[in-house]
Amino acid sequence: MLQRYLPILQWLKHYDRTALSSDVVAALIVTIMLIPQSLAYALLAGLPAQVGLYASILPLVAYALFGSSRTLAVGPVAVVSLMTAAAIAQLGLTQLNDVIAAAMVLALLSGLILIVMGLLRLGMLANFLSHPVISGFITASGLLIAASQLRHILGIEAEGHTLLSIGHSLLANVPQLHIPTLLLGSGALFFLLAVRRYLKPWLQQLGVNPSLADMLSKAGPVMAVIVTTALTWGLGLEQQGVSVVGLVPAGLPQLSVPHFDAALWQQLALAAVLISVVGFVESVSVAQTLAAKRRQRIDPNQELLGLGSANVASAVSGGLPVTGGFSRSVVNFDAGAQTPAAGAFTAVGIAIATLLLTPLMYFLPKATLAATIIVAVLSLVDLEALGRTWRYSRSDFAAMFATLLLTLLVGVEVGIGSGVVLSVLLLLYRTSKPHYAVVGRVAGTEHFRNVERVQVETDARLLTLRVDESLYFANARYLEDLITEKVAANPAIEHLILMCPAVNGIDASALESLEAINQRLQDSGVRLHLSEVKGPVMDQLKRSHFLQQLSGQVFMSQYDAWCALRAPD
Amino acid sequence: MLQRYLPILQWLKHYDRTALSSDVVAALIVTIMLIPQSLAYALLAGLPAQVGLYASILPLVAYALFGSSRTLAVGPVAVVSLMTAAAIAQLGLTQLNDVIAAAMVLALLSGLILIVMGLLRLGMLANFLSHPVISGFITASGLLIAASQLRHILGIEAEGHTLLSIGHSLLANVPQLHIPTLLLGSGALFFLLAVRRYLKPWLQQLGVNPSLADMLSKAGPVMAVIVTTALTWGLGLEQQGVSVVGLVPAGLPQLSVPHFDAALWQQLALAAVLISVVGFVESVSVAQTLAAKRRQRIDPNQELLGLGSANVASAVSGGLPVTGGFSRSVVNFDAGAQTPAAGAFTAVGIAIATLLLTPLMYFLPKATLAATIIVAVLSLVDLEALGRTWRYSRSDFAAMFATLLLTLLVGVEVGIGSGVVLSVLLLLYRTSKPHYAVVGRVAGTEHFRNVERVQVETDARLLTLRVDESLYFANARYLEDLITEKVAANPAIEHLILMCPAVNGIDASALESLEAINQRLQDSGVRLHLSEVKGPVMDQLKRSHFLQQLSGQVFMSQYDAWCALRAPD
Repeated sequence: MLQRYLPILQWLKHYDRTALSSDVVAALIVTIMLIPQSLAYALLAGLPAQVGLYASILPLVAYALFGSSRTLAVGPVAVVSLMTAAAIAQLGLTQLNDVIAAAMVLALLSGLILIVMGLLRLGMLANFLSHPVISGFITASGLLIAASQLRHILGIEAEGHTLLSIGHSLLANVPQLHIPTLLLGSGALFFLLAVRRYLKPWLQQLGVNPSLADMLSKAGPVMAVIVTTALTWGLGLEQQGVSVVGLVPAGLPQLSVPHFDAALWQQLALAAVLISVVGFVESVSVAQTLAAKRRQRIDPNQELLGLGSANVASAVSGGLPVTGGFSRSVVNFDAGAQTPAAGAFTAVGIAIATLLLTPLMYFLPKATLAATIIVAVLSLVDLEALGRTWRYSRSDFAAMFATLLLTLLVGVEVGIGSGVVLSVLLLLYRTSKPHYAVVGRVAGTEHFRNVERVQVETDARLLTLRVDESLYFANARYLEDLITEKVAANPAIEHLILMCPAVNGIDASALESLEAINQRLQDSGVRLHLSEVKGPVMDQLKRSHFLQQLSGQVFMSQYDAWCALRAPD
Repeated sequence: MLQRYLPILQWLKHYDRTALSSDVVAALIVTIMLIPQSLAYALLAGLPAQVGLYASILPLVAYALFGSSRTLAVGPVAVVSLMTAAAIAQLGLTQLNDVIAAAMVLALLSGLILIVMGLLRLGMLANFLSHPVISGFITASGLLIAASQLRHILGIEAEGHTLLSIGHSLLANVPQLHIPTLLLGSGALFFLLAVRRYLKPWLQQLGVNPSLADMLSKAGPVMAVIVTTALTWGLGLEQQGVSVVGLVPAGLPQLSVPHFDAALWQQLALAAVLISVVGFVESVSVAQTLAAKRRQRIDPNQELLGLGSANVASAVSGGLPVTGGFSRSVVNFDAGAQTPAAGAFTAVGIAIATLLLTPLMYFLPKATLAATIIVAVLSLVDLEALGRTWRYSRSDFAAMFATLLLTLLVGVEVGIGSGVVLSVLLLLYRTSKPHYAVVGRVAGTEHFRNVERVQVETDARLLTLRVDESLYFANARYLEDLITEKVAANPAIEHLILMCPAVNGIDASALESLEAINQRLQDSGVRLHLSEVKGPVMDQLKRSHFLQQLSGQVFMSQYDAWCALRAPD
């Protein structure tokens, strides 16, 4: 029981020196990567830089205790920080302390929601976010984040939480353009893009081991941070108006519980739900992909507990909502992390950085952080998915496009909410007019195929309809209409056979429709038969009175029905 | 084109004297039945009696022009009047004129919603109301209506729109009990119940023709109205405090368009949507049942136009929301109505009554109307459906029970809204963990069956999974988990075959999951194959890159897959 909820008890007893050294090396690399990321994502969320560091200490320890993935690296991530920023913006707070408190409340609520979902084993709720909705949302978030960071590169003020308002605000403030910031920011941006694109092949050409080359090319942000910080310090760019991170208080976060404020909690509740679900879905897919590479498994319900406790830990230590990050987890995996202990060691690394390195962060330009964010989020933008999805399925495309557009133009909550609702409505619509075929016998065989596609034998007194969908409330009335229409159009019919090999379920609505169909057919002198009903469906039908009322029979196979009912030769 | 939207053009050209005389007789009978009903349902909606008469004139003419059912009798009905009462109550109006105006706005909005749905051919939207939700709602409405009418039988004041508030209000006012009203009301009630139960068999015993006996037993309410009105007048019961309908203004309704009031329209919009959809669903099912008896068809989208125009007609002539009534339509059908002209003749009948008979309505006791309503709505209450549905499907039962309970305890809008949301969530839940089977070959055959149910041949290097559900967003991740688990548990596997005869569709989410599964299996040295993929699903898969990426093959039949992949003997 305890082992089930505390995965650490499983791996800790086999923990040895090999695992320890692998985990320490991975933790060191992730720590170096995580320092600028945590600062950047805190600023993206509209919070002071140290909040990002705080969110990278205790939450990692909590996840190491409760998480089921061995290699997931938890902490602040871009999309969740964007959602945090949007949620806090709608509160209209003016005091920085209130903003920090709101972020803590958001982390606490997200954590509690995740934990409750985990205890109730409701991981499946995340399935309501279909891939097209997630994909549209992530792409839109990437674009929104990139747009929102442009102001740091340009050195101007700008605000807004939709593409139009950000764009308008940027344009209005272009006259304030700050040249030194622009040079620094765009320099960092081009450097990062170049590193991303060319460093790895170049290093490999030089004969560097591929995995080291990969690691070094991912160190681009760290190099950019070090170089631009040194430049800013050396050239005194801060005095020339280049925005820097500034004073980051040294020392570990103080523990405190966000105090209860009913109105505030209520205002943040919906945002917390969305943050939990989006963070969970993204994190689980990363964790699953990595686990599969080593034929390991993750437990989605345990992941809820892991991520939930990480968020609660973030809330009580002055942090912001966190989840598993994609690039960071891949680095952790590639660096050889064996167990969640790597996460705990990373936490130690960040704690040491918070104690000792904050003076070095003073001269870190915000433009550099913005450049690292932009380069990171542009990899989230997948506009090609629109074309791919359009070709595959129009209704999935509609859900994706609506989510993308509404997220960009109205906001993250409306965007993702509409996407979820739309994908459910489209599912109902798609299955509300199921594919069906009037079938006949392929001469000389026991096969029955679509009369429109195959040359088949039919009998005017017999109509066989194969419906290729489960029967449920959204298509029950369609079935009634369909059968009424077929019978009205074929006055010679005496038997109607519903062929059910593709009917995986019949709900109570469809059952009532079948009863109505049976009754109406009987009133007009036609008998209703079923054929090839699946076992579980038949079991369920036996628990109703339908089979007693049925004017015809249930045949094991369509061929049996054909033999029994067709006109004698 | 015109014929499509004006069904009258189809039947009018074949109209002859036989049809005319049948329609006139049916109209006469329906008129006699409709007069007390229209008064009663107006009072139920909290409106003056004449509003019910007005709603039984022009709307019937409009439906005769645009409706597609030949025998549906339109007018005020119990459930819609209850919903109207609830919608208006929440406005907190104190002036009777405002209440009347609100009812007109509600009819107008419902009419416009129905017409727009009809023009957009959105009749399928009504499918979102599953049978269990409708059934739970109608039962709850019947109970609520009966409870709300008890006050008229007891002669006391009472209000409220939930079972608890009505009950509480009745109990609090029991001391006001008015004995003459109680005697009259309960007399009418017992008379109506007795007529309903015993008159028809008794008349048949006396040798009366069955259909005439049926008709006479349905005339019970008219007899009760006539007798109690005469009693009230003769015994001067009004002076003794028996509530009567009182002065009903004579004359036809004046035409006027409800003036636009944005705030009011907005407040009534949701109620109008629910009234439209509930009214439409009920009406269509009545119309469909009657049409099938004569092998006729109704067109649901045309019905939307018919009912929509009836409601608009009601709105401009001082009426309330209307729809097709069950018992009234059955009487119309049984009385031999041939065409919608019967409805138009009924309208003439009601118009004449409104011109000439209103003085006779003065002494009609409200207690009698309440008794007719109670007897009528008790036939809507179907508590046995709860047990039937429980046995058939727990999730349908949950939707029905929640709708029933919330309608009774919270209100009609919350009740039906929660029912719709719940039935969609339960559908997603049900299909989110689809039935699946690991299958093996039945020795000596080409059949593959569940290894847990049938003695079959398997191969340790080969795992075949048959999933009995379409693959879509709600179960895509479940499939990922399932396959990861099966592969982790069977280290010897080299080939995984997904057998898809029951997969009616694969949406973009499931496609991405399949791609992820394929990639993860490949990473762990397992090849993924598909077998027995349906034609339309295969067509769709060909529009993606999945088949190129697939590490294995797509086999026409599972037997082909078995032959190709199993270990050589």
